[in-house]
Amino acid sequence: MKMFITGGAGFIGSHLADTLLKDGHSVTVYDNLSSGDKRFIEHNLQDKKFIFIKADLLNLPEIKKEIKDYDVVFHLAANPHVRLGETQTDLDVNQGILATYNVLEAMRHADIKKIVFSSSSVVYGETNEPSLPETYGPTLPISLYGAGKLGAEGLISAFCGTFDFQTWIYRFANVVGARGTHGVIVDFIDKLKKNPRQLEILGDGKQCKPYLYVSDCVSGILFGFTHFHDRVNLFNLSCDSTTTVTRIAEMVTEEMGLENVTFNYTGGIRGWKGDVPRFQLDATKITTLGWNATLSSDEAVRRAIRDVLHAKL
Amino acid sequence: MKMFITGGAGFIGSHLADTLLKDGHSVTVYDNLSSGDKRFIEHNLQDKKFIFIKADLLNLPEIKKEIKDYDVVFHLAANPHVRLGETQTDLDVNQGILATYNVLEAMRHADIKKIVFSSSSVVYGETNEPSLPETYGPTLPISLYGAGKLGAEGLISAFCGTFDFQTWIYRFANVVGARGTHGVIVDFIDKLKKNPRQLEILGDGKQCKPYLYVSDCVSGILFGFTHFHDRVNLFNLSCDSTTTVTRIAEMVTEEMGLENVTFNYTGGIRGWKGDVPRFQLDATKITTLGWNATLSSDEAVRRAIRDVLHAKL
Repeated sequence: MKMFITGGAGFIGSHLADTLLKDGHSVTVYDNLSSGDKRFIEHNLQDKKFIFIKADLLNLPEIKKEIKDYDVVFHLAANPHVRLGETQTDLDVNQGILATYNVLEAMRHADIKKIVFSSSSVVYGETNEPSLPETYGPTLPISLYGAGKLGAEGLISAFCGTFDFQTWIYRFANVVGARGTHGVIVDFIDKLKKNPRQLEILGDGKQCKPYLYVSDCVSGILFGFTHFHDRVNLFNLSCDSTTTVTRIAEMVTEEMGLENVTFNYTGGIRGWKGDVPRFQLDATKITTLGWNATLSSDEAVRRAIRDVLHAKL
Repeated sequence: MKMFITGGAGFIGSHLADTLLKDGHSVTVYDNLSSGDKRFIEHNLQDKKFIFIKADLLNLPEIKKEIKDYDVVFHLAANPHVRLGETQTDLDVNQGILATYNVLEAMRHADIKKIVFSSSSVVYGETNEPSLPETYGPTLPISLYGAGKLGAEGLISAFCGTFDFQTWIYRFANVVGARGTHGVIVDFIDKLKKNPRQLEILGDGKQCKPYLYVSDCVSGILFGFTHFHDRVNLFNLSCDSTTTVTRIAEMVTEEMGLENVTFNYTGGIRGWKGDVPRFQLDATKITTLGWNATLSSDEAVRRAIRDVLHAKL
């Protein structure tokens, strides 16, 4: 099939591109390289089945010009930094909501009907539920990033209802692994490289979340796409375990071979305004049909630490 | 208190302005009169406690200039026509999502923290539930209008989580009554004035929804605002009965004194792409604390028909 990936030079998008090419599909990557990195797709540039377009999704005429004759659009482009919305409040409105609208409009004009979307567990906001199923409501995100994802979900769903689109929406756990450019693992490694004797940890370190290894994330995306055929197919995508922030700090110091590192907690239950301190996702909907994460949350974190330390691409 | 109402010259907004003035508050109405009507606020223009600003919410510098020193913002401005998104796909993105973002940004800059928002039952999309509670999920709207409301809810919720805003979000049933400028009642009356012998009814006429009279809607908004004090207070606002489209057609012909009107159904279960054909809202959350609609759905429809026929303002 002919696949179009927005954000296809980014962390998850570039892994998805690799897998789709291996599976024999043609892949076009559309990326402005704001968070993506050309090194993540370099190995595919000579492949005749691979096209790279450096362009911005906020440019509607450009995306309309490029999205033509594809079977499926995988829409993964977004601001990846949950925390930035605190200081740049329009970032997720633009990169999350307006960019998604432009993708949908371009698809509508090109009569392309299938869209796969990377949403996030942060749409649920902060809840008292021990484990969140897809049926949990109301979804009240506490970050602008979460609002961007929820707004995008709504637009995609509306295009399904109004223009007969079909969608696969995935609410991801924290995805980690090679090519990861941000998040707690990268932060800790950066800080410890600067000062290997102490580590500042945002919050109380008890924040506890599921971490999903990037190859499991890609396998889940494609499993859902292959096995579910409703108009709107919405899934949580997660392993069934969680890892605390302090445990991540311990694993990072272990993997870096550091000893006697002092952990300095900034305090409070959350890392920053808009951080959801504790959650778990109930992924029963997709696991019931046979998909499972191959790595636990701790295993995913440890492998991701090694990937980042060894600059694995 | 000093109240700011976006869309305050519109159908619901102007009734809310009347009630707040009667209750002794100062009221500023911000409206671009695209759907609002100056006749709806004319009787208040001499009131020293009333200010009218004709301006657009998509003009961020303008709204930033005007939103200052208010206690509460009632954000009711929106495209009111659910159906228009089918042909103007950017309408609800702009009037629903971007306008809401601008209101929130202006409030943040002015350090105003309380926002009351008119959402809609259409955020739920099409479901198999006999009656929808606020906890129903996932919310998968089938209209662009619904996507606009869901996106706005998400942004408001994110500003609560990130900037300590407090909100009261109401998911309205179909609101009807004096000053109603659109919807099935107005459509039927317009059609029958042109041709009193037959009436085209979109769909099969079995579409069945709750209709809430506008004064009940306003009393519910203010009841929730007074009685609930969480960070995010989200409610369904509805009576506990429903009315079919055919029943509305019958009541309109009765009230117009017409006999032997032929009903011509266009067929299909819904009026148009994006129309949710059947739903009921579970408003237990707010009724448990003592609010109730004074009119049933049928009573609300009949009174609204009379209001429109007698051009009541």
